[in-house]
Amino acid sequence: MTKDWVIEYFESEGTCFGLKGSERVESVQSPYQKIDIYNTETFGYLMLIDGCTMVSSRENFLYHEMMSHPALFSHNDPKRVAIIGGGDCGTLREVLAHECVEQVTQIDIDEQVTRLSEKYFPELCERNDDPRAQLLFIDGLKWIDDQPGESLEVLIVDSTDPVGFAEGLFTVDFFKQCFAKLAPGGIIVQQSESPLLHGQSIIAPLHKNFRAAGFSDTQTLHFPQIIYPSGWWSCTMAKKGGALDQFRQEDAQAKSFATRYYSAQMHQAAKVLPPFLSQAIDGLS
Amino acid sequence: MTKDWVIEYFESEGTCFGLKGSERVESVQSPYQKIDIYNTETFGYLMLIDGCTMVSSRENFLYHEMMSHPALFSHNDPKRVAIIGGGDCGTLREVLAHECVEQVTQIDIDEQVTRLSEKYFPELCERNDDPRAQLLFIDGLKWIDDQPGESLEVLIVDSTDPVGFAEGLFTVDFFKQCFAKLAPGGIIVQQSESPLLHGQSIIAPLHKNFRAAGFSDTQTLHFPQIIYPSGWWSCTMAKKGGALDQFRQEDAQAKSFATRYYSAQMHQAAKVLPPFLSQAIDGLS
Repeated sequence: MTKDWVIEYFESEGTCFGLKGSERVESVQSPYQKIDIYNTETFGYLMLIDGCTMVSSRENFLYHEMMSHPALFSHNDPKRVAIIGGGDCGTLREVLAHECVEQVTQIDIDEQVTRLSEKYFPELCERNDDPRAQLLFIDGLKWIDDQPGESLEVLIVDSTDPVGFAEGLFTVDFFKQCFAKLAPGGIIVQQSESPLLHGQSIIAPLHKNFRAAGFSDTQTLHFPQIIYPSGWWSCTMAKKGGALDQFRQEDAQAKSFATRYYSAQMHQAAKVLPPFLSQAIDGLS
Repeated sequence: MTKDWVIEYFESEGTCFGLKGSERVESVQSPYQKIDIYNTETFGYLMLIDGCTMVSSRENFLYHEMMSHPALFSHNDPKRVAIIGGGDCGTLREVLAHECVEQVTQIDIDEQVTRLSEKYFPELCERNDDPRAQLLFIDGLKWIDDQPGESLEVLIVDSTDPVGFAEGLFTVDFFKQCFAKLAPGGIIVQQSESPLLHGQSIIAPLHKNFRAAGFSDTQTLHFPQIIYPSGWWSCTMAKKGGALDQFRQEDAQAKSFATRYYSAQMHQAAKVLPPFLSQAIDGLS
């Protein structure tokens, strides 16, 4: 690692990204992974898991807002929400901003991620004490398996890259499980990597896998995500019955909470895909 | 520089970006700057000017399409176009795709940029022999000064960052010159850096400067640009008389040439700004 810079080398993509800030303020080896916290010069705190940049103070709002609000406003009445992964609690925080939500369960296998987030990213954890929130530190796949059928309205898969133990979160078998646990009209959203780097390798197959699992419609939204490979990221939604072309636009316009990236208009805009990406998705679906 | 990686350290922003590929295939010291060409593993060729990443084979389409098509489709009848900078000829290539354009003048002070682009980015130079194109290697500020009043429909400022000799391309004085040379209804577009990093320091002041120079409306569009700081970039347009809320949407939908990022719908979407950026612009305008 170059002195004074925290750099992640995305070897398989041939790109790297880094932040200036030599001070590593904490390093924890949990039973699952190594978690490092750096204090950077211009992006606040930075969390790395097994050397991969996960979340920074300055720009995590882009990702957390886009992983939550489009899915919640795409559901007619989201009451019961689950977040697989998401241990930094940033997605949980955004979900809890929705008054219609009655319960949110966050299931991240690694409690240390949440403990370190509470310490270095307290703004992401500010709603953790909300009585509607439940934080579990167990295997998300097993938790899903244990749920009654049709017991969720929205399922957010806020996972790491599809390698290692997160690989199972991108398969048809997993999506079939999710499909069974979602009530009719339910929505699943999965982080789906970079439009430029992973359009053909991850995003297009994800649409195919969602449909193979029984979902009736799928939709990718794209947005900037500075610290992830290419700086350009996406999430992909799927709906159990019905189409995704509409969302609760008036509710989004009249929402009672502030956002920095998301708005009803940005929701519309993020659904519009550049021709090269539409073609990749249409070619496989 | 780390072995095997070409990394640009954006010291003032505290971020860095790099591509894998240790092979520097050419290095030229022109009268103006040092130009290096690398052969990268996953992004094709990469041009650096004075150590700053400028253009790569894989993703330059994002920038070149967004610097040209929104401006041209925002003008009712763009016949005479000028490009200040843009020596790699990628913007020129996109402008020449528009059949209504009768003449395009590209004015880049450094002929070596174009010579190296012809060699390593021939796809960007494939329309350089179009009889409507004129390539000049002189000072763009002086060229603008020498033009008759109201002699251009669209002026594209495809410059480097606003430091050194490009700094003059972001000032009210320069924009007043441009205003005088544009015919009524004319449009200027300027690359305007990163929404996240430069919203307050560059984009908002640019709106203010355009208006101070006499332009009646201004508009920022945002788009990914992988190799530039933060991976998220913008261009800002200004119009001489009238508003920018409309563009030739039907013509954009029916365009005769292929694009990979731009489309009429993407044009609409790119105009929608996230709340934090709108607020920065509104706060200064």
